[in-house]
Amino acid sequence: AFESEKVDFAVAYAAKAFLCVAMAQLVDEEGLWLDVSSGGELYTALSAGFPPEKILFHGNNKTRHELELAVESGVRYIVIDNFNEIEYLDGFVRRKGRKQQVLIRVTPGIIPSTHTYIQTGQMDSKFGFGLATGMAMEAVIEVLSRESLSLKGFHIHIGSQIFALNSFEKAVEVMAAFVSEVKSRTGFEAEVVNFGGGLGIKYRIQDVPATIPEYVKTITEKAKEEFFARNISLPLLMVEPGRSIVGNTCVTLYTIGSIKEIPGIRIYVAVDGGMSDNLRPMLYGAVYEAVIANKMKKDLEMKVTVAGKHCESGDILVKDVWLPEPESGDILAIPATGAYGYAMANNYNLQPRPEVIFVTKGKARTVIRRETYDDLIRNNFKLHGEK
Amino acid sequence: AFESEKVDFAVAYAAKAFLCVAMAQLVDEEGLWLDVSSGGELYTALSAGFPPEKILFHGNNKTRHELELAVESGVRYIVIDNFNEIEYLDGFVRRKGRKQQVLIRVTPGIIPSTHTYIQTGQMDSKFGFGLATGMAMEAVIEVLSRESLSLKGFHIHIGSQIFALNSFEKAVEVMAAFVSEVKSRTGFEAEVVNFGGGLGIKYRIQDVPATIPEYVKTITEKAKEEFFARNISLPLLMVEPGRSIVGNTCVTLYTIGSIKEIPGIRIYVAVDGGMSDNLRPMLYGAVYEAVIANKMKKDLEMKVTVAGKHCESGDILVKDVWLPEPESGDILAIPATGAYGYAMANNYNLQPRPEVIFVTKGKARTVIRRETYDDLIRNNFKLHGEK
Repeated sequence: AFESEKVDFAVAYAAKAFLCVAMAQLVDEEGLWLDVSSGGELYTALSAGFPPEKILFHGNNKTRHELELAVESGVRYIVIDNFNEIEYLDGFVRRKGRKQQVLIRVTPGIIPSTHTYIQTGQMDSKFGFGLATGMAMEAVIEVLSRESLSLKGFHIHIGSQIFALNSFEKAVEVMAAFVSEVKSRTGFEAEVVNFGGGLGIKYRIQDVPATIPEYVKTITEKAKEEFFARNISLPLLMVEPGRSIVGNTCVTLYTIGSIKEIPGIRIYVAVDGGMSDNLRPMLYGAVYEAVIANKMKKDLEMKVTVAGKHCESGDILVKDVWLPEPESGDILAIPATGAYGYAMANNYNLQPRPEVIFVTKGKARTVIRRETYDDLIRNNFKLHGEK
Repeated sequence: AFESEKVDFAVAYAAKAFLCVAMAQLVDEEGLWLDVSSGGELYTALSAGFPPEKILFHGNNKTRHELELAVESGVRYIVIDNFNEIEYLDGFVRRKGRKQQVLIRVTPGIIPSTHTYIQTGQMDSKFGFGLATGMAMEAVIEVLSRESLSLKGFHIHIGSQIFALNSFEKAVEVMAAFVSEVKSRTGFEAEVVNFGGGLGIKYRIQDVPATIPEYVKTITEKAKEEFFARNISLPLLMVEPGRSIVGNTCVTLYTIGSIKEIPGIRIYVAVDGGMSDNLRPMLYGAVYEAVIANKMKKDLEMKVTVAGKHCESGDILVKDVWLPEPESGDILAIPATGAYGYAMANNYNLQPRPEVIFVTKGKARTVIRRETYDDLIRNNFKLHGEK
């Protein structure tokens, strides 16, 4: 999509949505950059042989160890989030006799809602430097004053699962204005502007998200307009999709166990997973579809609630979904679980995490092995005696 | 507390609140039983040498493998939750030429609220057999008809983090009535009645939960009254505390990293953890206190918000807490994180899970080792080549 717009661009996959060694390799093969936001994500990428010159390092509270790891592994851009970081990074990079390329994360005061956005004067966020408060300009001046840090541009992220493309237009407008203001105040002209992620995906049948070409066209056209209007040459345009890359690629397969009809109230269909493999319904009230994979051609007959197996009432995966008559042993599939599914998987109730399998052209390959019971106690020590 | 009430009793620690090998050993040393609700919890308990004759196995959707593991390891009670389970368990136990002791989980239609309870005609729960719908009685008749299953009594669980002791009184009343009804319908007299867990703990300074002695006294006195009034001898009284045993024993220690003041809005104090080690603020809106461990005697000077390090706006641990002036490098402590903290810990953003340390009489012992970056990719396979 970007190629057809004839602009300088880079697309960084947002590792937080889902990362493992094979995924990092795939991202590299597809020619994407990688956005990591922790030492663990960086370590995984490096273990996969991902080129550090295509990695960005994010985070509102990078530890000293993480900053050191990022610098020493030659990460392309560290995205500066706060003043503590400028201080520590500058000191460390100088001690190492290096120079580090950085972007600065700005907080725009835009909140996307379903069909439009809300521009807030208030910028209550743990991330980045506020535009309205003047912090962002202060950060620019601070970074420019540090010889060890080479400022390359800015980063902005307005939110997640956004359907309203005009929210992205607003973000472009805000960034062009800021880049222009920075230029006139300091002479610095941004080479890179990173618009973060946020493109929504289809979770439910009725969802109609923008397509990737529409999204890219919106950003590039608006950028051309806004930057040219201000007499600034177009910087490299960067985006960081996570969900819109992996979300719809994944289907979680469960086996149906117990089926419980509470007359006049609800039919519970329980599966062999739940909040340990998908926290989104409990965390965000996220709504998913569900189908019975071995009964795809059967009529939808019953409205049921799909419950997990965890010892907790809130462990409900899908409320009120129509299925063919379910039977114990059926395979229940929940689509669109690729983003923030396995990424947030946990061992609640000491449930082992499931296998992750890549499928292409009829071939399947395990990329993350299913956890065993032994994995669960691998790091345990006994109460007494030698460790 | 139970001993001083002079009744037959058993207290089972609810493993789901927090379990590891050392915890299971400690539970055993303290003379408690153990309530597990998954194969993983059972495996961990057995690995710790926990006696199976003091284990109960719960779950709304025990897999076949889990039921087999429970029977074969000699678990004392399997708590029957649904008809599918009766069917499979009966078949398996018969094939093995065994007999299995079971309890039946009933759904009471009581919802505890802060100071009292709501009795609902509706019994919309994924757990157990409803009383009002007649399912519970049906289950009793079904289980009694299976020679392989030896019914010992009933289980009821009314909720979590309950402050209102009259909710427990109501549960006792409901159970006594049901035991009596079962006796007159079938002749079966329960030997065990298990009232589940649910006793609330102190998370915030202003919280005033009931004490354990008050809780026990409430249950035992009400049980004596209700059972004797119905001319039934008092069964063994069982409870399953989880949170009220481990919740207040644990303090999570973080290191403060970045501190961000957004003038007139908020001061964010970011720590080196967050929703990967404590999901309760995000999942349930749970409210915690926080202190600076190395500044306990300093005056409280600033109202701050404690943010985690995860790449997500919702990753806020404590909103609006008063602290002495925080500095990068300070140790921030959040108390009362023992229950459903580490139990729900995850690797979001590929953040390694923290170390768990038991402390007693000035001595510290690691019971779960901190995860390393290598642990995060231990089960990963590459995209190509041999596995």
